[in-house]
Amino acid sequence: MISQIDHLGVLVADIDANVDLFELLGLSVGAVEHVDAFGVDIAFIRVGESLVELVEPVDDTSPLAGDLRAADRPAFLHHVAFRVDDIEAELTSLMAHGVPLVDEEPRPGAGEARVAFLDPQAANGVSIELVERSQPVSLN
Amino acid sequence: MISQIDHLGVLVADIDANVDLFELLGLSVGAVEHVDAFGVDIAFIRVGESLVELVEPVDDTSPLAGDLRAADRPAFLHHVAFRVDDIEAELTSLMAHGVPLVDEEPRPGAGEARVAFLDPQAANGVSIELVERSQPVSLN
Repeated sequence: MISQIDHLGVLVADIDANVDLFELLGLSVGAVEHVDAFGVDIAFIRVGESLVELVEPVDDTSPLAGDLRAADRPAFLHHVAFRVDDIEAELTSLMAHGVPLVDEEPRPGAGEARVAFLDPQAANGVSIELVERSQPVSLN
Repeated sequence: MISQIDHLGVLVADIDANVDLFELLGLSVGAVEHVDAFGVDIAFIRVGESLVELVEPVDDTSPLAGDLRAADRPAFLHHVAFRVDDIEAELTSLMAHGVPLVDEEPRPGAGEARVAFLDPQAANGVSIELVERSQPVSLN
């Protein structure tokens, strides 16, 4: 079951270039964290029960670097992540209904989450991630 | 002050073509509502404290129809809307800091909200909306 928007992923060419506006809006940008598995740096911004995740590809060979080049602009809304209580149950149900997935098994995400992406074709081009967390995200 | 993500706007070529996946994920898609000022049909999906807003341009001359044609795919994440308690105060502060805005004054949005869009250039291409609500959104 989906309980909330876990986070909204914003792909950016440069995290630093996006901090000022959010701070002007009264939001705090957390410390930058490197996520080697995806070849990116990320920084979270708490907004109510959800997070905005700034994602900067730092490895030019990563798929996310390719997404940024394809978008041809310095920042865009890249994916929406929904919080689920049982990620295996969700993936099993989606597969049973023939929904195409990028990840048929959960993989480790930032902040000790377990995550899986649907194939964007499942949502007509929108990238949807499922996130199961055993503990809340702590921001630095 | 921003309290939460009010909604995530998803621009779609066809609302009906996007309902099945969200229902499979256990989410309910509300009744379709026409918003004449924007030349669109919309349907809200409640996800925790936030909403996902499916937006289908039905007037080919609307700016949103142009955005959909430019994106060249049947659905994409179009804007993020932050809930604020005093929209005039936010707009005054942003203008004082030279942040470019689409709307320097609030205008009526769906569900009796008062809304204003920042110029996407303010956030390196990401479209940000501010929303003030005097009452919660009721979904049909």
